[in-house]
Amino acid sequence: MKSFKEMTREELLSLKSQLEKEYEDAKGKGLKLDMSRGKPSPAQLDLSKGFLDALSSEDTLKTEDGVDTRNYGLLDGIAEAKKLMADIMGVKPESVIVCGNASLNIMFDTVARSFSHGVNGETPWCKLDKVKFLCPAPGYDRHFRITEYFGIEMITIPMSPEGPDMDLVEKYVNNDETVKGIWCVPKYSNPQGYSYSDETVKRFAALKPAAKDFRIFWDNAYAIHHLYAEADRQDEILDILSECAKAGNPDMVYEFSSTSKVTYAGGGISAVATSDANLAWIKKSMTVQTIGYDKVNQLRHVRFFKDFDGVKAHMMKHADSMRPKFLAVLDVLEKELGGLEIGSWTNPNGGYFISFDALPGCAKAIVAKCKEAGVVLTGAGATYPYGKDPEDKNIRIAPSFPSPEEMAQATDLFVLCVKLVSIDKILETR
Amino acid sequence: MKSFKEMTREELLSLKSQLEKEYEDAKGKGLKLDMSRGKPSPAQLDLSKGFLDALSSEDTLKTEDGVDTRNYGLLDGIAEAKKLMADIMGVKPESVIVCGNASLNIMFDTVARSFSHGVNGETPWCKLDKVKFLCPAPGYDRHFRITEYFGIEMITIPMSPEGPDMDLVEKYVNNDETVKGIWCVPKYSNPQGYSYSDETVKRFAALKPAAKDFRIFWDNAYAIHHLYAEADRQDEILDILSECAKAGNPDMVYEFSSTSKVTYAGGGISAVATSDANLAWIKKSMTVQTIGYDKVNQLRHVRFFKDFDGVKAHMMKHADSMRPKFLAVLDVLEKELGGLEIGSWTNPNGGYFISFDALPGCAKAIVAKCKEAGVVLTGAGATYPYGKDPEDKNIRIAPSFPSPEEMAQATDLFVLCVKLVSIDKILETR
Repeated sequence: MKSFKEMTREELLSLKSQLEKEYEDAKGKGLKLDMSRGKPSPAQLDLSKGFLDALSSEDTLKTEDGVDTRNYGLLDGIAEAKKLMADIMGVKPESVIVCGNASLNIMFDTVARSFSHGVNGETPWCKLDKVKFLCPAPGYDRHFRITEYFGIEMITIPMSPEGPDMDLVEKYVNNDETVKGIWCVPKYSNPQGYSYSDETVKRFAALKPAAKDFRIFWDNAYAIHHLYAEADRQDEILDILSECAKAGNPDMVYEFSSTSKVTYAGGGISAVATSDANLAWIKKSMTVQTIGYDKVNQLRHVRFFKDFDGVKAHMMKHADSMRPKFLAVLDVLEKELGGLEIGSWTNPNGGYFISFDALPGCAKAIVAKCKEAGVVLTGAGATYPYGKDPEDKNIRIAPSFPSPEEMAQATDLFVLCVKLVSIDKILETR
Repeated sequence: MKSFKEMTREELLSLKSQLEKEYEDAKGKGLKLDMSRGKPSPAQLDLSKGFLDALSSEDTLKTEDGVDTRNYGLLDGIAEAKKLMADIMGVKPESVIVCGNASLNIMFDTVARSFSHGVNGETPWCKLDKVKFLCPAPGYDRHFRITEYFGIEMITIPMSPEGPDMDLVEKYVNNDETVKGIWCVPKYSNPQGYSYSDETVKRFAALKPAAKDFRIFWDNAYAIHHLYAEADRQDEILDILSECAKAGNPDMVYEFSSTSKVTYAGGGISAVATSDANLAWIKKSMTVQTIGYDKVNQLRHVRFFKDFDGVKAHMMKHADSMRPKFLAVLDVLEKELGGLEIGSWTNPNGGYFISFDALPGCAKAIVAKCKEAGVVLTGAGATYPYGKDPEDKNIRIAPSFPSPEEMAQATDLFVLCVKLVSIDKILETR
């Protein structure tokens, strides 16, 4: 089909009136679909059937080294859970602290601790006039909300399929001592599904921060969330902890992960992995904050999966449940928008999202038009710091919750709205 | 038996040499006993047998109003768990937020939030030159560690069987606007087991704080932890939330509680109860901190207990397990120290501790002497701010973990050490 830009005003107007009829028909259907939330579907949660039976009153509730998980103690988690989370992140168990049900909470606490008490003895951020974070974008809105909550200035860093623009990252980190951190989702990034290249990871590890207390917040949320079984469609990234150590920056990174999208989003376990010096600093405050996290649920995870192979096998079932939803979206996008030059989108090997870029200035209008016809998308702008997409073009599509059929239906309406809004945009610029 | 003070130097010296022999014999036994930790015994944890079976893969994991506990969402907890925790605290469900496995963590987060972002719009504590907390003592060392961690100046308030010295509390709170909070364990206090009288609670509710952001931190940790079945030996306290509301101070209190000492110390649920205005302020930060706490474990608690009657019946089993340990200690103390005027102790109706007051200047020496013979006690001073007992006389005895027989053994050694240290003290003052 002809690209919209090549069409004459008349062609566009006649196409528009025809599409408007389709849109009115669609509205008549009274759709109620949600493509906004990166949450597991009931079917996916059902794949963890048996999880709750992994621990019963008949089982011993002691760890291999005899710790009674029912009782107080063991601040940094049970050894078996440390091993499991370490395998998921590809790090050493001794680098890991296993926490509660949400890695977001660990990230919040890490920023909060740096704000109130500083990082490894450096000046608390609350005593500084200015603290900045680099925010590769499009990115994860909940990361940006944490830094915004603590009054940290956020600087947008463009993303590419290899990861953040490292020239810019190096320029800021190596020269500006008010830059204290950067938010990263290094594998199957939210929302684009990009995985950082080896060169990107090595350049991160080789940073020479102006600030002693600069840290990389490495949110490895989708470390094992592949969509395909084929090896050539499974991304792997370098282990940032060992790369930083090799480069002489052992303390420069905190890595986070959880089982929220492995077992239950409402009942998983989370973990942080970092250097000995950082672990010691974290524990100094953690020991004031709690006596210990839920060790019973840690043991439940270990008993259910047995080992990392168990986790990987489990995640392949997830892939089989997620893949059809992604393919349903990609199929409609390709069929309906291919060649029109009014949008581009990602085709990730894993993660939870597809990122769509409309023509500049169209995202808000597309999201609004979809909503009017009963299809909810993540708010336009949500993927950028302060919720402001400078070009108003990025839209995050979350296929995880609805069924493949619902995703196809929702995407049919989505492309219709993309076309209508794009025609108006092109006409107004003629 | 004659009081030590009435004894002549000669009498004391001969008694001492005899007791020293007993002490040497005791050391020879190679005891290894721990009276230091307020943690449940394995036998007590076994009383929750069936807890883990309360949720299986065969059960629906949805709440009564249809929320899938396996998935994300519901920041303030499932309705059934709010009801359960509200009943335990004696408040309304709509006043409650159910959180993770530790109420200590909620208290830490509450102080941390006040430090970084202030209380309901008031100036963040980190921006103030001076912040003070009142600390009724002897009290809970982990409370004091939180305020110390945030650089808050702690002021010791003497305790009586009716609660804190309210004349002093009123003097500070109503006149000093740098006083921002007070730590309270209002029922079966740690370590004395005192419960605040109705007059004390009403005087708390009637405070006229100089600081708008003054808050009472009401740690109702032992709300349902009676030691006796008889009604006349079960303490009850007034509901501080409704008393504060009646007195025109609805926002002045946060109440905390958990099931750490009801089901599993390592796998319980916790809650905070407070006014609508405070709940709104808390949620403003909580929604940045997490997507929601472990709802599956919340549901597990509700299914296991059914309702508050189930909880109360369960806690009577705890009482039957705890009572013999307390009686074993009290029996030895009375038999061995009664009338000697070298120590006094509490005989609580509930909670986890017995508080012992030695002669001034003797606590550290007694704890050290016990340790030398293999009996570990909570460090002397731990029950006071900064770990400093001004009179060096208070010792916290925790009977919960060992068996009754072990507690009797340990107390036998304890009284021996009390006698020996007291004789030295009396002699040096002659």
